[in-house]
Amino acid sequence: MARRGKKREVDQSTIRAPYIDRKIGPLPVLSQEGLELIEANADRILAETGMEFHDDPEILQIFAEAGCDVMGTRVRFAPGFCRRTITATAPASYTQHARNPAKSVRVGGSTSVLCPSWGPPFVQDLDRGRRYASYEDFTDLVKLHHMIPWLHHSGGVVCEPVDLPANKRHLDMLYAHIRWSDRPFMGAFIGAERAGHAIDMARILFGADYVAQNPVLYCVSNTNAPLVMDANMSGALKTYALAGQPVACTPWTLTGAMSPTTVAGTLAQVLAEAMACLALVQLINPGAPCLMGSFASTMSMQTGAPTFGTPEAGQMVLAAGQLARRLGVPFHTVGTLSASKLPDGQSQQEGTWGLLMSMFAGANMINHATGWLEGGLVTGYEKTMMDADLCGKVARFFDGIDLSENAQAMEAIAETGPGKHFLGSEHTQSNFLGALFRPDLPDNNSYEHWSGAGALDMAQRANALWKQRLAEYEDPGLDPAIDEALQDYIARRKSETEDRAYF
Amino acid sequence: MARRGKKREVDQSTIRAPYIDRKIGPLPVLSQEGLELIEANADRILAETGMEFHDDPEILQIFAEAGCDVMGTRVRFAPGFCRRTITATAPASYTQHARNPAKSVRVGGSTSVLCPSWGPPFVQDLDRGRRYASYEDFTDLVKLHHMIPWLHHSGGVVCEPVDLPANKRHLDMLYAHIRWSDRPFMGAFIGAERAGHAIDMARILFGADYVAQNPVLYCVSNTNAPLVMDANMSGALKTYALAGQPVACTPWTLTGAMSPTTVAGTLAQVLAEAMACLALVQLINPGAPCLMGSFASTMSMQTGAPTFGTPEAGQMVLAAGQLARRLGVPFHTVGTLSASKLPDGQSQQEGTWGLLMSMFAGANMINHATGWLEGGLVTGYEKTMMDADLCGKVARFFDGIDLSENAQAMEAIAETGPGKHFLGSEHTQSNFLGALFRPDLPDNNSYEHWSGAGALDMAQRANALWKQRLAEYEDPGLDPAIDEALQDYIARRKSETEDRAYF
Repeated sequence: MARRGKKREVDQSTIRAPYIDRKIGPLPVLSQEGLELIEANADRILAETGMEFHDDPEILQIFAEAGCDVMGTRVRFAPGFCRRTITATAPASYTQHARNPAKSVRVGGSTSVLCPSWGPPFVQDLDRGRRYASYEDFTDLVKLHHMIPWLHHSGGVVCEPVDLPANKRHLDMLYAHIRWSDRPFMGAFIGAERAGHAIDMARILFGADYVAQNPVLYCVSNTNAPLVMDANMSGALKTYALAGQPVACTPWTLTGAMSPTTVAGTLAQVLAEAMACLALVQLINPGAPCLMGSFASTMSMQTGAPTFGTPEAGQMVLAAGQLARRLGVPFHTVGTLSASKLPDGQSQQEGTWGLLMSMFAGANMINHATGWLEGGLVTGYEKTMMDADLCGKVARFFDGIDLSENAQAMEAIAETGPGKHFLGSEHTQSNFLGALFRPDLPDNNSYEHWSGAGALDMAQRANALWKQRLAEYEDPGLDPAIDEALQDYIARRKSETEDRAYF
Repeated sequence: MARRGKKREVDQSTIRAPYIDRKIGPLPVLSQEGLELIEANADRILAETGMEFHDDPEILQIFAEAGCDVMGTRVRFAPGFCRRTITATAPASYTQHARNPAKSVRVGGSTSVLCPSWGPPFVQDLDRGRRYASYEDFTDLVKLHHMIPWLHHSGGVVCEPVDLPANKRHLDMLYAHIRWSDRPFMGAFIGAERAGHAIDMARILFGADYVAQNPVLYCVSNTNAPLVMDANMSGALKTYALAGQPVACTPWTLTGAMSPTTVAGTLAQVLAEAMACLALVQLINPGAPCLMGSFASTMSMQTGAPTFGTPEAGQMVLAAGQLARRLGVPFHTVGTLSASKLPDGQSQQEGTWGLLMSMFAGANMINHATGWLEGGLVTGYEKTMMDADLCGKVARFFDGIDLSENAQAMEAIAETGPGKHFLGSEHTQSNFLGALFRPDLPDNNSYEHWSGAGALDMAQRANALWKQRLAEYEDPGLDPAIDEALQDYIARRKSETEDRAYF
């Protein structure tokens, strides 16, 4: 296994890139007419129904000053206002910088950035079963993700460390990302205060001037669909927008509950909510980077449970990608989602469907590209590794077809000739290391060989692999002065308030 | 479960169609320039290296009479000859008729027809493990496939019934398809004699005049890559072509062994082989239906084992679809392939990747859309049901986005308003039965509910489902006179030769 790991370093270097630059897709799913219909419906929703912004008078004032119709907490927008506001100043792409410049990610256009699981309060693995996540799990997952070459981003709440006080754990999470990985990471996403802490810590890491001029964080800001944003979300949105840090304005919908039970209805609502929030970002700080997000899930109409990897979710993500491109902003969405309790067939049927659809949708940032189980309640260690293989396959696939003279292999075909084989040909010998992507976990051996090796399924092989990767973890190191300053900052923030079990 | 089965009859009727009519894709992967490069390379291969046709002097004579350069068994083709021959007379689409006219399939353009697993000598299920397939398995699989609404075709060798004499079992297989399903089916594919038996049996079923004027069979004709066709395949190809029955000219390649280790090289070889065989079909019987096939697999360069669900296989199928469309013939390829020994995560990660890529490639006929395991050595009962869910999801997804006024749901959004939910809305109530596709096997329940129900993984749930579907099997019936005539024909053919354990 160690030998295999080493080989990979050599031969697959071409796709160990800091992000994916897609040469294939995106795939349109709505015609021009269909897109204009959804856009007109979104405008009508914003004009007639409007959107509510709760417990945040400052935002209502911003909208009122911009000429919107504000009644109580309800804001209504003249048709075209949001789109004009967004397209006037929102950048089409930006770079989120990592402390290791080689790992900075370009976001927008043909790029895709894969982020790990985000938000689960539980973790799961074959040895320890399903359990509440701890800060030890959190740091282990950060380290594990750091060792997966096909992830590009350290993410945010890779699991919720519930053994830490709810009101302070964001500090420990940010520290873990900064300390144990040198990739880009997400800011705290609930509330203005915590967002401020993330910016403070980024300033310690990168320097205040650098942060003032460059995106170094990433925040997902969810609406409370339908058509509400609460102060926890708007607080963080405002803070990051003011600081010029990227915000993904992301309606999270469940068809039939938080949005209409139909795809076309959900799309109009998603676009309406996203446009209102994107316009808000641009009103707060014209030119601040922002992404249209979509997390449009389906729901079992029998049980009310969220469902994943569904045909309708696939249609919605492809259409949302088109709508985002027409707004001229990068597109954020989700990856290998599954309702499965286990790293089984369901988890991979749903997860593969989801990630492929998001990639064909031309998504620029993909959250939950690995590890998500149980509708987001669980980050699975084995599933993380299984999904990581898929991320690698996606990277190679979207790298496109090599049409170089070497790849055309015309001499090899002529020399080999009918009925012979290419195994010994010079072309095969000189290309075999790099020609084909090699995921870690598939077993392609004979039944007899596989049986002799213990007849393990993919999840069991993944169990061995995550332990190996953690054992091989390579600490990127951190300047001791920065480390000390961060720890000092965290200690001061923690000392200012009592521990609380709620946010 | 019975209730659920019944409900599905009502609410998902829109996608219980005899075939899929794609509203999404196909997705291009090669530019115009890239396509022309591959086509020029294929022409050069056919002109300079050529293709060999073994043990079949009649074919060599056909090519010689058409002006090709024939030396021994080697045939070389002037650049452009094959393409001109194909495009002059090959139909762009055709209908393969079923004995139940409601189940006839249209092949070409935007249609996709999903066929079950083809060829495995072994079967596998959780109760009985992995074992040699028997004729009982064969008939059970035909019945099971017949009960899967998302398959469109009864297929051919759904497993190899190795308990029957190798030289006669094709008769029993054809009988099982005709007797236990009323969908279209495949003809025997090895050798002219057996192909003739399939046509004889089709004449008994449909009437000789009908068969003379309509496609009622389907045959896959594989090359022996690189650049060879043997007499078993050319014999069947000739027989079906003469009878006007569709032939899928399908190079089966393994990169690095049977074709160059690179995608671009393999594509040129695949196109060259397919064009030579398609031209042959048109020379034998101008206007006979034929498909460009591609089964371009990758190989582990470490072990020589075939690998599936790989990025390169995805690229090759998308490109092959484009090349087929430029030839003006329907495209045949493969589906949920996996090297896994089990219906586990690997089987679904690889299978989902494979079927989605083939669908995005715009494939018109997809073999092995269900059940394939172990690189084609095994048809899995549980995997069949897991893949069947995927086939249903694919059908719904490619049906496209409904943009009707009802689907736009503008009133529902206005009535519900910010912060409320859609669960009780009239729109949800009147749409919930049909709005969302419901696969059979995902468990979307809470962890507690799932644990209480036995904590089953997807494969275990599939185990219960295939037994249920077999128990619910509905015999489509068969005219007793036809049944008797078929049995009489089979008995006569069997009595003419000794049983043999080889083909």
